[in-house]
Amino acid sequence: MHFQSIDALNTKEIFPGYTGHFIHTGHQTFVFWDVVAGSCVPEHHHIHEQVVTVREGQFELTVNGEKRVMDKGMIAVIPGNTKHSGVAVTDCKLLDIFYPAREDYK
Amino acid sequence: MHFQSIDALNTKEIFPGYTGHFIHTGHQTFVFWDVVAGSCVPEHHHIHEQVVTVREGQFELTVNGEKRVMDKGMIAVIPGNTKHSGVAVTDCKLLDIFYPAREDYK
Repeated sequence: MHFQSIDALNTKEIFPGYTGHFIHTGHQTFVFWDVVAGSCVPEHHHIHEQVVTVREGQFELTVNGEKRVMDKGMIAVIPGNTKHSGVAVTDCKLLDIFYPAREDYK
Repeated sequence: MHFQSIDALNTKEIFPGYTGHFIHTGHQTFVFWDVVAGSCVPEHHHIHEQVVTVREGQFELTVNGEKRVMDKGMIAVIPGNTKHSGVAVTDCKLLDIFYPAREDYK
């Protein structure tokens, strides 16, 4: 089972409007998000390092007070224990990678 | 510097036709590849766990003898020390995530 369809992965709605497709490799957690335009993630933080990439659409991310509208051409690196929040500018598809794995998403 | 443009990241052609844009977070290495149709990666292996995602186009990946043509809807997880090879079916954009970080790509 080296190959998997993203749509076939287990899903969970973590915040309203944020449906995640999850894969855990042991060391890392990968979340393929389908996000509804206008949906917000309130400011929060966690111990995990998080890297945010946009696969489709536009997403406004704020990291430690720095705000950007991200599209496919941009990447964000959020160190562990760093405050961040976001809002979907359009319907969008994101890929977040967490290290270490998110036990709370299993 | 939480946000970065993928096109502005350092680049290196690792295999002919495979130009990588690299970001290293300490624990992980992220490579955004621009791949020319028909370009091959010969069979190889490394200690790093590798997750392969397709951002655009189609890529044929073989992992330990299992072969698939991947598009945006598919993900591959390659455990450490597992043989793999690939060929770009079309011009494509891939994102590979490695754990631990690839010192040889720095």
